[in-house]
Amino acid sequence: MTRLSIPIELRWGDLDAYGHVNNATIFRLLEEARIRAFWRGGKASTAVLDASPNSESWSLIARQEIEYLAPIPYLGGAVDIQLWIARLGGASLEICYEIHGPPGDEPQPLYVRAATTIVLVDSTTQRPRRIADHERAAWEPYLGEPVQFVRRT
Amino acid sequence: MTRLSIPIELRWGDLDAYGHVNNATIFRLLEEARIRAFWRGGKASTAVLDASPNSESWSLIARQEIEYLAPIPYLGGAVDIQLWIARLGGASLEICYEIHGPPGDEPQPLYVRAATTIVLVDSTTQRPRRIADHERAAWEPYLGEPVQFVRRT
Amino acid sequence: MTRLSIPIELRWGDLDAYGHVNNATIFRLLEEARIRAFWRGGKASTAVLDASPNSESWSLIARQEIEYLAPIPYLGGAVDIQLWIARLGGASLEICYEIHGPPGDEPQPLYVRAATTIVLVDSTTQRPRRIADHERAAWEPYLGEPVQFVRRT
Amino acid sequence: MTRLSIPIELRWGDLDAYGHVNNATIFRLLEEARIRAFWRGGKASTAVLDASPNSESWSLIARQEIEYLAPIPYLGGAVDIQLWIARLGGASLEICYEIHGPPGDEPQPLYVRAATTIVLVDSTTQRPRRIADHERAAWEPYLGEPVQFVRRT
Repeated sequence: MTRLSIPIELRWGDLDAYGHVNNATIFRLLEEARIRAFWRGGKASTAVLDASPNSESWSLIARQEIEYLAPIPYLGGAVDIQLWIARLGGASLEICYEIHGPPGDEPQPLYVRAATTIVLVDSTTQRPRRIADHERAAWEPYLGEPVQFVRRT
Repeated sequence: MTRLSIPIELRWGDLDAYGHVNNATIFRLLEEARIRAFWRGGKASTAVLDASPNSESWSLIARQEIEYLAPIPYLGGAVDIQLWIARLGGASLEICYEIHGPPGDEPQPLYVRAATTIVLVDSTTQRPRRIADHERAAWEPYLGEPVQFVRRT
Repeated sequence: MTRLSIPIELRWGDLDAYGHVNNATIFRLLEEARIRAFWRGGKASTAVLDASPNSESWSLIARQEIEYLAPIPYLGGAVDIQLWIARLGGASLEICYEIHGPPGDEPQPLYVRAATTIVLVDSTTQRPRRIADHERAAWEPYLGEPVQFVRRT
Repeated sequence: MTRLSIPIELRWGDLDAYGHVNNATIFRLLEEARIRAFWRGGKASTAVLDASPNSESWSLIARQEIEYLAPIPYLGGAVDIQLWIARLGGASLEICYEIHGPPGDEPQPLYVRAATTIVLVDSTTQRPRRIADHERAAWEPYLGEPVQFVRRT
């Protein structure tokens, strides 16, 4: 399975009073990785989505799920967010993530497993719109198995 | 089923460039509701948890799950975060939430469904610690059915 | 001198790893107080400014200055942001603030002194636009002396 | 005058509903640049300050001042935060900043001018402590003229 690897720099301000990257802020890190991976203008080959507020297409978030495996300290550098696609539906896709420690560190700790379901919406009609052929072609190389969440009750 | 109802004031700064409360920031709202509901010093009868950084007990977040049903605008006021407990284990609990529109609005829109699994940890040994009797007694009145997530694939 | 008194609820997530409300986040609190005081839809008599992204008028921030007198802890409640206007120019105004401890506390600690200069801009021409008569009338009762900053070098 | 040049990556989540990096969030960017420049563990030769929550020394922020010259868009990359020291007192220092567009862009837009006054404090006595000789030696090469603020009234 092919994954994208997106380094996202931490900020000291991401920490909360426990001295770890805050649980909510981690979704901000995932958001940034997702945007760099998918939004037009990014460097990745998957960056084909026009998702600016004025575009004809919006990407709405339908659901998210996350498991926190270890607290993330301020590293004075980047975490490595690995990203792939578990499902390409008609108008939606499920993006999967793992947050690992800095690239090059051995062993690289695994901090987080997560998934986000995105629905592509026509901004005029506000209804789901089909994933375009060129989008599907750009994304298919990154199709893989869904994240295995182990803490669902 | 008895729920806690915690009003959380929105801030204009919670909005992102789409003009809606940001998907990650919504976890910040849930966090604030959870803290007011459970941490000692809060007004709710459930506020019996000593979770300060220096306390003997920490509450770690093991997992979260969320479904976004409608975008939340800046309301110039509070949303109504309703909160209950789906499961009281030996050392962990699952907190469930719904975010509704401002109290008093009819009909009150339902914006979000979510759940957080908390593990109570002994801060010295770093190992899970049992929920104390007085905590269990304070929380049991708010036991209810788990959130029904409908968008899992 | 007449001041507006705007209670702004703190969030635990406003704290940084030092356990105090973060220096940057304090500007978020001032922003929220300013918006509730001035933006149309707020409860204050000064809330006459149409500042939504789609309006004909934008309010741009030209400068800010702040002195931090004491660290702000998480209070499980609101700080009291007192707010007045030091200068009403042709197209700009200077808003002054003090952040005090919770209303009712005696003595109320003074945490912060700050000022923000706002320029009103025509969103079409992107040029400064004159403060309207009804705006000036609503704001004049809150004119007062500028904040005395004592730590400029 | 010698300046440090610290690239700080923007996040899409730094934008507010106006679609520009939020005025308060800009202080978060300055904070991150300051930390990378001065805190032990950073790469810069000035990174000699032990400012962790448990250290014997704290760095408290006494004041900040900022002028916003142009709105900062989401660049999908880093801004260039240039940083120098305007004053090295007995126990305090004034850090000056300019935020420029991405390194390499010609012309590089100037977005922000700002200054922060830091006081070094003994964490036990809570009183100001003298800047140590090795700190002063590390910082002196970056002494320069104070920021010229032009919008004070």
